[in-house]
Amino acid sequence: MLPEAIEAMTEQLKRPGNASSLHATGRRVRRVVEESRETIADALGARPSEVVFTSGGTEADNLAVKGFYWSRRPRRRVLVSAVEHHAVLDPAHWLGDAQDAHVELLEVDEHGRVHPETLRAAIERDPDDVALVSIMWANNEVGTVQPIHVLAAIAHDHGIPFHTDAVQAVGQVPVSFTGSGADALTLTGHKVGGPIGVGALLLARGVTPIPVLHGGGQERDVRSGTLDAPAIAGLAAAVATAVKEQEATARRLGALRDDLIRRVREAVPGVVLNGDPVDRLPGNVHFSFPGCEGDALLMLLDAKGVECSTGSACSAGVAQPSHVLLAMGADAAAARGSLRFSLGHTSTSDDVDRLIEVLPAAVERARRAGLG
Amino acid sequence: MLPEAIEAMTEQLKRPGNASSLHATGRRVRRVVEESRETIADALGARPSEVVFTSGGTEADNLAVKGFYWSRRPRRRVLVSAVEHHAVLDPAHWLGDAQDAHVELLEVDEHGRVHPETLRAAIERDPDDVALVSIMWANNEVGTVQPIHVLAAIAHDHGIPFHTDAVQAVGQVPVSFTGSGADALTLTGHKVGGPIGVGALLLARGVTPIPVLHGGGQERDVRSGTLDAPAIAGLAAAVATAVKEQEATARRLGALRDDLIRRVREAVPGVVLNGDPVDRLPGNVHFSFPGCEGDALLMLLDAKGVECSTGSACSAGVAQPSHVLLAMGADAAAARGSLRFSLGHTSTSDDVDRLIEVLPAAVERARRAGLG
Repeated sequence: MLPEAIEAMTEQLKRPGNASSLHATGRRVRRVVEESRETIADALGARPSEVVFTSGGTEADNLAVKGFYWSRRPRRRVLVSAVEHHAVLDPAHWLGDAQDAHVELLEVDEHGRVHPETLRAAIERDPDDVALVSIMWANNEVGTVQPIHVLAAIAHDHGIPFHTDAVQAVGQVPVSFTGSGADALTLTGHKVGGPIGVGALLLARGVTPIPVLHGGGQERDVRSGTLDAPAIAGLAAAVATAVKEQEATARRLGALRDDLIRRVREAVPGVVLNGDPVDRLPGNVHFSFPGCEGDALLMLLDAKGVECSTGSACSAGVAQPSHVLLAMGADAAAARGSLRFSLGHTSTSDDVDRLIEVLPAAVERARRAGLG
Repeated sequence: MLPEAIEAMTEQLKRPGNASSLHATGRRVRRVVEESRETIADALGARPSEVVFTSGGTEADNLAVKGFYWSRRPRRRVLVSAVEHHAVLDPAHWLGDAQDAHVELLEVDEHGRVHPETLRAAIERDPDDVALVSIMWANNEVGTVQPIHVLAAIAHDHGIPFHTDAVQAVGQVPVSFTGSGADALTLTGHKVGGPIGVGALLLARGVTPIPVLHGGGQERDVRSGTLDAPAIAGLAAAVATAVKEQEATARRLGALRDDLIRRVREAVPGVVLNGDPVDRLPGNVHFSFPGCEGDALLMLLDAKGVECSTGSACSAGVAQPSHVLLAMGADAAAARGSLRFSLGHTSTSDDVDRLIEVLPAAVERARRAGLG
């Protein structure tokens, strides 16, 4: 977590209260929440009234996907890209299984990109029956950045609400909610140096999803639950800092990433870089190591102090090939033999040196294990 | 917040990580989460595997009510008491409005009690069509404690899952999940001296609600979303402390409450104590002040440094008479002229003295305003 976020949060932890209470303590906590809302709106090109606080990215994605679907009934078509995070894919599939939706996965190319003509053609097969479109701003596994404003405009040509999961994008690439044209945008605290357990759905005026959490009627009746003022203060501090430093961070991490890619390619012949070679997150590198099991390679690197991930951490522990890589055309073996290296505000060139030092032997060992 | 909870939480804020990651940091965070799960289970008479972490009470209630309903389709009857928190009532009403449920509100008596024969008669009108029963352990407004194990047993006579919102009960009265016989029990951090933004649904083995938040598949696929390890550690510390000190707290607060009730009755003739006179939360006092608007009285007391609430904080700001008091048979005017005084671990007899000092004049003034 960023020091600014820890400080903002711990200050509020010492002064608890319920932002919906009418008494003086409640009103003070309410001010903290409303100032945080303004900070986040300001940093992301939105209006304060467009910020709906949630418990994180998963909840914001569920609210957008299910909420738009229910509010747009009897329309039944739900269009989502094939490379979405499970927090978008799984709500969509549940709507298909249990709530009469027709879920259609939008194809991506070998770099994980949704082509605008793919979306346009999908919509035009039956535009009046489309409840919503959801396409992520940047992919959490392979780092590919999508042309969100182009895709949102296509949905809007047909009056269809457009949601984007920007959990990976905020603080890494420039993000303007108004500029993107999206009707709803997901962000989460712990991906921008803020706390876990808090996030937001930016929600344009004029679109009102049905809540997934009903209750006290907080957040304009879109999301009930006692407002988590300390976490919200931490989120606002983190978003403000991450967005202010985004350009410098992108330059620094981008250079580190390019160095890492170049040196891994030299050190490990046959390695394959996944994701868009140009339009990708500065802090993301994703490789396939032919002949390796990703889990084995991860454990070998972990023993040497290098931490990385196979697929998405959310579904880690399950040895399934990544749906993202499969959608990009990889075969199951290549998909399983893949690792993601994330660079963040604490990453340095020493970390890259350390990786290059231990990676070739680890790959060699993982390959032998795979053959055995 | 309890000092123990702040300490446990801030320690983890400095050492962030994703409990689902496979690498060393992820495994360390996972241990924090699993130890917290054991602590909570131990304090509340549950098994560790029965603890499902959520973002708080509202989410846990939504998960129980909607999740049981969807998992028990095609059964349509949803039986909830008329005095439930909005986090139970509103999901139930939404199921009725949008998901084909038949919602039936169980009547309460003038003290807010659900009589066992009321539940039995309601079920027996068509037991095979009942999807779930939800009755709160203790009421958040008037403090009435329900005979949960008796009510749960009646639901079980017909094989119907029973949920109880125990948000107000944990730490105030003895709570054993296994002992209660409930299939699901809601608790939340900020009502036990822990953080806002975290809670749990205790979930017996053999019952599996459909998720309200789909995604990465955390928490046995019942609740997706990155685990908020710092908040979970804070919740566990708070639950452990609150339960360990429950008996002493109940004794101390109960005496303070009885003193407050006696002195308010002396100081303000005509005041009416709401809720069960015997089976009530030790930290809750709820009065009707005939001839007063509760909001006006609240503001007058607030100006004198005494903080209290009208109805539930969640729906504060809306001048609606409390559904709890209406269900107990109060008329709308009496319901609007009511205030709740909560006693907690920081409350002392000085606070009661202060209230008695300022209350008579405030009531007098509020009454004149009401007449004007």
